[in-house]
Amino acid sequence: MSSSLGTRLAPPPGAGFFAHRSVAELAADLRSGRVTARELTETALAEAARWQTVINAFTTLDDGARRAADEADRELATGRDRGPLHGIPIAIKDLIDVRGLPTTAGSRHFAGHVAERDADCVRRLRAAGAVVLGKTATHEIALGPTGDRAAAGPTRNPYEPGRMSGGSSSGSAAAVAAGVVPLALGTDTGGSIRIPAALCGVVGLKPTHGAVSPDGVLPLAPSLDTVGPLARTAADCRLLWTVLSGTTPSLESGRLVEVAPEEIPHAGELRAAYAVIQGSEAFAVHAERFRDAPELFGDEVRDRLRAGSEVRGWEYVRARDLRDRVRDDVRKLFQDNAFLILPTVPMTAPPVDARTCDLGDVRTALLSLTSPWSVLGLPALSIPAGLAGDLPTGLQLVGPPGSEHRLLTLAETL
Amino acid sequence: MSSSLGTRLAPPPGAGFFAHRSVAELAADLRSGRVTARELTETALAEAARWQTVINAFTTLDDGARRAADEADRELATGRDRGPLHGIPIAIKDLIDVRGLPTTAGSRHFAGHVAERDADCVRRLRAAGAVVLGKTATHEIALGPTGDRAAAGPTRNPYEPGRMSGGSSSGSAAAVAAGVVPLALGTDTGGSIRIPAALCGVVGLKPTHGAVSPDGVLPLAPSLDTVGPLARTAADCRLLWTVLSGTTPSLESGRLVEVAPEEIPHAGELRAAYAVIQGSEAFAVHAERFRDAPELFGDEVRDRLRAGSEVRGWEYVRARDLRDRVRDDVRKLFQDNAFLILPTVPMTAPPVDARTCDLGDVRTALLSLTSPWSVLGLPALSIPAGLAGDLPTGLQLVGPPGSEHRLLTLAETL
Repeated sequence: MSSSLGTRLAPPPGAGFFAHRSVAELAADLRSGRVTARELTETALAEAARWQTVINAFTTLDDGARRAADEADRELATGRDRGPLHGIPIAIKDLIDVRGLPTTAGSRHFAGHVAERDADCVRRLRAAGAVVLGKTATHEIALGPTGDRAAAGPTRNPYEPGRMSGGSSSGSAAAVAAGVVPLALGTDTGGSIRIPAALCGVVGLKPTHGAVSPDGVLPLAPSLDTVGPLARTAADCRLLWTVLSGTTPSLESGRLVEVAPEEIPHAGELRAAYAVIQGSEAFAVHAERFRDAPELFGDEVRDRLRAGSEVRGWEYVRARDLRDRVRDDVRKLFQDNAFLILPTVPMTAPPVDARTCDLGDVRTALLSLTSPWSVLGLPALSIPAGLAGDLPTGLQLVGPPGSEHRLLTLAETL
Repeated sequence: MSSSLGTRLAPPPGAGFFAHRSVAELAADLRSGRVTARELTETALAEAARWQTVINAFTTLDDGARRAADEADRELATGRDRGPLHGIPIAIKDLIDVRGLPTTAGSRHFAGHVAERDADCVRRLRAAGAVVLGKTATHEIALGPTGDRAAAGPTRNPYEPGRMSGGSSSGSAAAVAAGVVPLALGTDTGGSIRIPAALCGVVGLKPTHGAVSPDGVLPLAPSLDTVGPLARTAADCRLLWTVLSGTTPSLESGRLVEVAPEEIPHAGELRAAYAVIQGSEAFAVHAERFRDAPELFGDEVRDRLRAGSEVRGWEYVRARDLRDRVRDDVRKLFQDNAFLILPTVPMTAPPVDARTCDLGDVRTALLSLTSPWSVLGLPALSIPAGLAGDLPTGLQLVGPPGSEHRLLTLAETL
C-alpha cells in the first residue's frame, strides 16, 4: 500500500471517511453538488464521536459547525466561492482561541475558560470558508512531546491505541490520521506538530518562526512558538498553509541532502539552548499560576515548570546568543537550493505513559531531531515514511526561512 | 560665573588649558597657525601628568600621541583637512580597544591585555584626525556607577578630590572636567556616561542603543550598552557625536517638558528590569572568569556578579518583555516634538567609598534617574546645571530614538 517515502500510509484500521479523500477531491465534489458542506460536517462529527473513545482526540465539538456548514453551502449555491477550503471541516488545537468555545490548553487551570474572539489564524480559516469542527486535545499547556498528559486524559495513536499519539498537538494529528477531519491546526515549539505527525503517519508543517501570527494562541515559549497545518498529504497541507500564511501557492523545488542525526550541526548546543529557552519562557508565561495554584497542574508538567524556573538568566542570554553565533554555519547547508532530510523522530510511537526507551528518556529522544531547527527558527516538514511493523515513521525536511512551499513541493516529488 | 541651566560651569580650581577653549576655537587656532596639534598634545600630556595624582583619571598615556599629532600637523600643512576634530586630543575609556595599548577594563583579569586592533569607534575618530591621548579609568568591568572600584584605585572628582567622580566612565568625565582633554569617549549601560558627567560638571551623551557599533568594546550588558561622547559643552559634544555616529550635524530642536523624578513612567518596573537584564547579561559575559579566578575581581564587583548569576531566566524574559509593553506608553511623552527634562542624579558627588546616603544605597540612588531610559534604549544627554555648594549638578534631557542632535540643540538653547 505505502511506498517507501513521502506518500500517504495505509490508513489505520477503521479509518474514517476523510482518510480516503483529498481536499481537492472534496472541493470538486462540493462544487459539482455530489456532496454538501453540511454532509461533510455531519460525517466529521459522526467520525469524531465514533473515534473519541478510542483515541480521545477532541476536547470540544462546535455546536456552530452545522450552521457554518449550511452557510458555506448557501454561499456556494449563490456563487460566492471562497476557494479550496470552502466547506471543508477543520479541527483546531485546544491552545488556539475559537470564539464561544472553551480553550482549556489541556489544563485544569483553564477549565471553564471560553474564548471571546477567534485567534487570528482561525479568522483566516473562516474567511477562506473552512468549517471549524471543534477543538483537539493538547498535551497540558503544550509542554510535552508525548500527548499523554492532559486534564482529559491521554490521546492515543489511531494505529495502535496502546501507543502514544505524540504531542503536544496530539488530537490534531490523531484526528487527521483517523480520517475524522482532513485538516487540523497545531502549534510547534520544539516539535509539537512534527512529532505527532510522524508518530500518527500524517503530514505536519512547522513554519518559519513569525510567519503566522500568534494572536489568540496560548504561548508556550514565544521566541520558539509557531502555528502550522496538519493534513494527510503534502498537497492538502499546502492548501491549508496557503490560507494560513497568506502566501501564493508555489511549486518551486530544490534538492534534498541527507543529514544523519549525528551530523546535525551544533546539535548538542542547540538542544541545550532549546531546554533553556523553553524552560525560561514557559515559566515566564505561567509563573503566577505556578505560584497560586500549583496543584492544578499535573505532576509531570508541574515538575517541568519547576525545572524551567531554576534556569538562570545568564544561561538564557547565552542560549539566545547561540542562535546568532551558529546561524551562518547552518545557513551554509542551504546553499545551492539544498534542503535537509532526516528522520523526524528516532523511533515509532512508544506505549502511552512510557518515559524510558532504548534511547534513554522518551521525551528527550522524541525532541532530539526537531528542537535544533526550532531554536534556529527554520521551517520543517514531517511526512509519512512508511510503516515499521504496524506503526508509522516520519521523515523531516528542513529548509531556510520562508521555504515552506518548496518543502511541500519536495515532499510531493518524493 | 555659571548661569542656572545648561551652560558650562566654573571649572574646578587649577583646571587645565582645555577648560578654557572650545573645540571650535582650537580648530580655528590650528588652521591659523596659532597652535599646532603637537602643542595641543604636549599640553594635554602635561595636564594629564599634573592631574594624575589628584584625580587618577588615566590608566595609560599613548606613546604614539606625539607621532599622531605630528602627522595631523603635516596633513594640515599640506592641505589635507579632516574636519573639526583634526589635531584635537581625545581620551578613550579603558573598556574600548586602542591598537597597541592595554585594555584593562579596570580589572586585574585583563592585566597585560594589549589590544591588537582599534575599536570601530576609535577608527572613526582617527579617520577624522583626532589624536588619541590615552586610556581613561573605568569602574571595574564598567560594573558600577561610583568610579571608585578599579584595579588602579578610585578616580576622584576634580572639584573636590575627596568626592567620587561617578562611573563607570570615571576617568573620561574627570579628565574633561579638569581641562586635561577637550573630548573623551565613554560607555553607558545604565548611566555610565551621564552619571560621571553630572557629578563632574561636563556634558555626556548616551546615544540611542545601536547607534554606535560596539565592535572592540568590552561588553557589560549588550542589550543596554552604548558608546558615547563626553565634552565640556553641547557644541563640542556635537562635533564628536557627528563623527562617532556618522550623522549630519543638525540644529533641529524641540520643546522641553519637565518630568519630576516620581513621574517617570513605569520607573519602578524599569529599574527592576534594568537590574535583571544587566545582572544576567554581565554574568553571561564574565561567567568563565568568575568560575576560574573569582579572586581577581574586586570584592564589590565579585559580589555584584554573583548576584547577577542568581537571576532567573524567566525574570530575564519578563524584563525584556517589559520593554515592549511600556514602549508605546513612553512614546506618547514625545508627541508634538516634546523632550523630557529631569535631574541626571538626585545628589551631588558623594565621598569616595560612600555606599549609603540620605536616599539609601548610593549606587541605587545614582542609577535611579538614568537606568529607566537605558532599558528603553532612548538617547539621553546630561548637561551641567550649576554648582550646589562647590559641587556640580546635572540635568538630563531625554528624547525619542535617533534624537541626539535635537537633544544637543536643546541643550545649547537652554
